[in-house]
Amino acid sequence: MRNIKITIKYDGSRYKGFQRLKDNDMTIQGKIEDVLSKMANENIEIIGSGRTDMGVHAYGQVANFKTTSNLSVDKMKTYLYEYLPEDIVITNIEEVDERFHSRYNAKSKVYLYKIYNNKFHDPFLRKYTTHIHKKLDIELMKEASKYFIGEHDFTSFASSKSKKKSNVRIIHSINITENDGLVEIYFEGNGFLYNMVRIMTGALIDVGHKKIAPEDIKIMLEEKDRTKAADTASAKGLYLYKVSY
Amino acid sequence: MRNIKITIKYDGSRYKGFQRLKDNDMTIQGKIEDVLSKMANENIEIIGSGRTDMGVHAYGQVANFKTTSNLSVDKMKTYLYEYLPEDIVITNIEEVDERFHSRYNAKSKVYLYKIYNNKFHDPFLRKYTTHIHKKLDIELMKEASKYFIGEHDFTSFASSKSKKKSNVRIIHSINITENDGLVEIYFEGNGFLYNMVRIMTGALIDVGHKKIAPEDIKIMLEEKDRTKAADTASAKGLYLYKVSY
Repeated sequence: MRNIKITIKYDGSRYKGFQRLKDNDMTIQGKIEDVLSKMANENIEIIGSGRTDMGVHAYGQVANFKTTSNLSVDKMKTYLYEYLPEDIVITNIEEVDERFHSRYNAKSKVYLYKIYNNKFHDPFLRKYTTHIHKKLDIELMKEASKYFIGEHDFTSFASSKSKKKSNVRIIHSINITENDGLVEIYFEGNGFLYNMVRIMTGALIDVGHKKIAPEDIKIMLEEKDRTKAADTASAKGLYLYKVSY
Repeated sequence: MRNIKITIKYDGSRYKGFQRLKDNDMTIQGKIEDVLSKMANENIEIIGSGRTDMGVHAYGQVANFKTTSNLSVDKMKTYLYEYLPEDIVITNIEEVDERFHSRYNAKSKVYLYKIYNNKFHDPFLRKYTTHIHKKLDIELMKEASKYFIGEHDFTSFASSKSKKKSNVRIIHSINITENDGLVEIYFEGNGFLYNMVRIMTGALIDVGHKKIAPEDIKIMLEEKDRTKAADTASAKGLYLYKVSY
């Protein structure tokens, strides 16, 4: 069996998330599996590097699948481009070692969170950013972000639905840029708990609004209690940006 | 009667164009007039600087309207923001001289045309750019654009439906930029005929694909015959960018 790795860019606005649910539900995985199964004339399941929730987007989600098909990867890419809906595009496709597993082998991930910080929202950004009308103090947010860097127990910053054995994760870097009201926050880490980026973003927004101080992040981490941290920022500002192996 | 000038940014994807048609049709003008009439408790008609077609967007459409309302312009702006659909936003509002007319007083307009030039389309740009998969030669397009500058009879570059007395217009400048596959063409002129920007863009695309030479633009202008020029580029890449007074 050949093992094929694909990189996927998608506008998640119309979908119930990445992971396949019931057969008729709109999911990214479902759409891709349906097209691949038709292409290869066999039942194909793809393994994603991780789930993304309803409304979350991706610049570089990664998945892999096994197939007996003899088609060249270029032909597969063209077939996928032709038959997938136009809000899902395969940006890269390659044949990989049979042991490659898009979830287990992921070394680090980058998530991007986009905020539009302006009194009035922008018609073109409404599905692709979270609108925050009250002015954010970006310098305070940068200061606060440093408390997340390194190895921590992120229990306070994970959905209470998260069922992982350990809530310890390493954040390598957080970069915040602001340009004409568009605030972009890049989070790089070895792994992320359920809702972790959205809750960290919620806390950074609270800092930006001076509801809490930058050093409060340190206390929240130490409390290891989800009820002590911030609200979960909305899905439409979140992008799975890159997965590294 | 007070005379109020508004600047409007809209995502035209869902609309049948700017101009009001029948009462239940989705138009930008219709949506704005309905909200304004409710706000002022009188029948309000807005005068746009010009029409935009179905699917065309705007960064800076301008309109004006007369009203007996005593509301401050700031309160009007907030009311409009609250009651307009989120793909139409009033970015500026001011009281102007009673003689101001958004169409007759317009001195120049800038239209922007966006092309995404890449083998595969981008999920996030699909509604906001025209996808051209075959590589464009940007330098040739820049060379060709110079033939449009100045005063010309644009009959070859106007829809045959255009019913203006004169087809003579002045193009002040055309600026073309390219960044990571996103090609942006800014056209500034004293006025534009029906479909003129989209037909000029069609001709520039033909030059970029070497179907015609840059100097063929000169010949097309001289022919004064719509059937000699290029196809009309699609609506979704077009933006009314700015109107100057």
